[in-house]
Amino acid sequence: MRATGIVVEYNPFHNGHLYHFQQSRLKTKSDIVIAVMSGNFLQRGEPALVDKWTRTKMALAAGVDIVIELPYVFATAQASDFAKGAIYLLDALKCTSFCFGSEEGSLNAFHHTYDLLSTKKADYNAAISNLIKQGISYPKALNEAYKLISAHSTIPLVDLSKPNNILGYHYIEAAHNLQAAIKPETIQRVVSNYHDDVKTNETIASATGIRKALFEEQALAPVQHFLPNTSYNELVTWKEHQQAFGSWEQFWPLLRFTILRHSKAQLATFSEVTEGMENAIWNAAHKCETFVEFMHSIKSKRFTWTRIQRMLTHIYTGFTREQLKQFNLPTYIRPLGMSKNGQAYLQSIKKDLQLPLISRVAASKGNDMLELDIKVTNLYYLGLQTTTSQKLIGNDYRTIPIIR
Amino acid sequence: MRATGIVVEYNPFHNGHLYHFQQSRLKTKSDIVIAVMSGNFLQRGEPALVDKWTRTKMALAAGVDIVIELPYVFATAQASDFAKGAIYLLDALKCTSFCFGSEEGSLNAFHHTYDLLSTKKADYNAAISNLIKQGISYPKALNEAYKLISAHSTIPLVDLSKPNNILGYHYIEAAHNLQAAIKPETIQRVVSNYHDDVKTNETIASATGIRKALFEEQALAPVQHFLPNTSYNELVTWKEHQQAFGSWEQFWPLLRFTILRHSKAQLATFSEVTEGMENAIWNAAHKCETFVEFMHSIKSKRFTWTRIQRMLTHIYTGFTREQLKQFNLPTYIRPLGMSKNGQAYLQSIKKDLQLPLISRVAASKGNDMLELDIKVTNLYYLGLQTTTSQKLIGNDYRTIPIIR
Repeated sequence: MRATGIVVEYNPFHNGHLYHFQQSRLKTKSDIVIAVMSGNFLQRGEPALVDKWTRTKMALAAGVDIVIELPYVFATAQASDFAKGAIYLLDALKCTSFCFGSEEGSLNAFHHTYDLLSTKKADYNAAISNLIKQGISYPKALNEAYKLISAHSTIPLVDLSKPNNILGYHYIEAAHNLQAAIKPETIQRVVSNYHDDVKTNETIASATGIRKALFEEQALAPVQHFLPNTSYNELVTWKEHQQAFGSWEQFWPLLRFTILRHSKAQLATFSEVTEGMENAIWNAAHKCETFVEFMHSIKSKRFTWTRIQRMLTHIYTGFTREQLKQFNLPTYIRPLGMSKNGQAYLQSIKKDLQLPLISRVAASKGNDMLELDIKVTNLYYLGLQTTTSQKLIGNDYRTIPIIR
Repeated sequence: MRATGIVVEYNPFHNGHLYHFQQSRLKTKSDIVIAVMSGNFLQRGEPALVDKWTRTKMALAAGVDIVIELPYVFATAQASDFAKGAIYLLDALKCTSFCFGSEEGSLNAFHHTYDLLSTKKADYNAAISNLIKQGISYPKALNEAYKLISAHSTIPLVDLSKPNNILGYHYIEAAHNLQAAIKPETIQRVVSNYHDDVKTNETIASATGIRKALFEEQALAPVQHFLPNTSYNELVTWKEHQQAFGSWEQFWPLLRFTILRHSKAQLATFSEVTEGMENAIWNAAHKCETFVEFMHSIKSKRFTWTRIQRMLTHIYTGFTREQLKQFNLPTYIRPLGMSKNGQAYLQSIKKDLQLPLISRVAASKGNDMLELDIKVTNLYYLGLQTTTSQKLIGNDYRTIPIIR
């Protein structure tokens, strides 16, 4: 059986994801599609709308064959580490290819860009440092430095100001650095703008747009036509049972408490909290009563919104820079769910796997990376702060991979 | 002006406190009564029912002349350190005497007991160690060892199985150890049993009984006749504004989150968390959905309920054993409120004070002990988890001593 891999968050699984996943299967002529999916905290530094099990159900219902959890360490890291963790897992799972959505759509442009930046690495890095010193954010500096380096290029290159192009570039870079056997492939995204608001005459919108509509309207109906029915029904069921969706607004009382419980010096020990941001965070948390107010108070040109949110994620979960240093690559493969075909595929490759395949977490005491996943899952449920969500503590010990 | 000192928590201020305070003034023939009062966390390891400002108002309304905050470091410490901090402050405030309520009622018995235990210190300590090794709690071991040492004594001694006698003993010991000029005095308590339930045909009940009735009945009326009207009115006003009283049940979501956010090894760094209690606390917090269930799950013969609650207090506030080591004696005098007479008294002794008199905390950056008081005050308000209580963050910066 031939397998392709995709890297996803499915927050929530929508029609655009469905398109990407179906095209990935077609384009790579694969029998099996394996999704490496973030757990309950995401790369944008946010708690997921619904937990990883519910998002796994959405993916399986849409036809994804296997969902593997991307450990917290990578799921909430900056793009290069996020990509490294995901591609490493897909390669470990013997995928022939991985297939990412991009604004660009042509793989050649990615290869050219990778070759250009590898050749001019020193110049590129010098330009980035220089731009950061001028006080602009890291992603902006990357993009500006890239423009400088690529100014006189005559071959087609990727526009690295687009978010999915950036991620795609990191996937390709990761595959190179890992010397992985897995081959990249890309599909053009059908939604042109990542942050677009939802438009009522279309059936595809970005997850960001869908979440925004959902929180602004405080209702599910307005986003229904952007989602497969199975996804929509999972959201409805979740809302009925948990009474709340995951968001920083919902988690704010616990986040604020956690910030106020620490000194500025302690805040500076958490992953990604650097360059005095502990002061801004500490001061603003004392003054601001809502998360939005708090974010607007600490936002600066220096850091992107998502980078700041990742700082907050690590403060919330108590994840320090020292801890991060202990981890390099994923140490286990943890399936969250699979189809019958997916199950057969895993059986067929099982004996050749270099990493342990973990279906029951109770059997894996002493694995720090996995214990961290279990811990942050608990902190996610507590963050929802509803009567039912409190009952989900320890859920990772009780839940085995979903078979569909 | 002649001043006497009392050590109080006023949680809440009730008729028994009124009697003790009035008798203290009479017995010591003092013009001024100064109460050293715990802030928002108490020696029993609990959040206070209402905040320190409200309890200060109750005390001033009843006629107490000056209320001084006992810093968190001492207010939530074991009895000997609690007593040391309190007596040191009253001595620093030039009180001629301090006057404590006791089951015993005779000062001579305390002096005899102190002399006996000082003389037989080595035997006493050996007996305590020996008893603790047999797995009984520290306070029980103290009492049993004391019985052994005092078995053949013919002079009247204090019964150290009674909670107020124990505290009284520690006050006297503290005064000796500090070589303080201040002289002890005692008054017999009119409620014989500290943990008595409230009795409807009486007007004096213990604070424990009052709190119990208040939480069980979920109403204020049943405790009204145990409180001066001014105290009762303060409780009513607090309830109207804050919608909740401070209790571990109320704080439990934040406490549980904090426990689950830490590893067992991290829990063991907090003050008083020793002898593997981090394991019991961590395990139980994963399983138990209510505070009562949690406490019953971790209670053992080894530790008293209050000792365990103090562990939880320090976990909640993030106060470590390492931090505790930095502190020895109070480094400031912080009045929370005073009468006109109290104000005149403070004016009269001001120039002779060895400690800074702090009315505005903003002026005292860099004082770790004071910053801790401000921090735990904020964490207290967040613990109430109501809309109005969130607005009280930073209250210590905005509130100046109450003048009545």
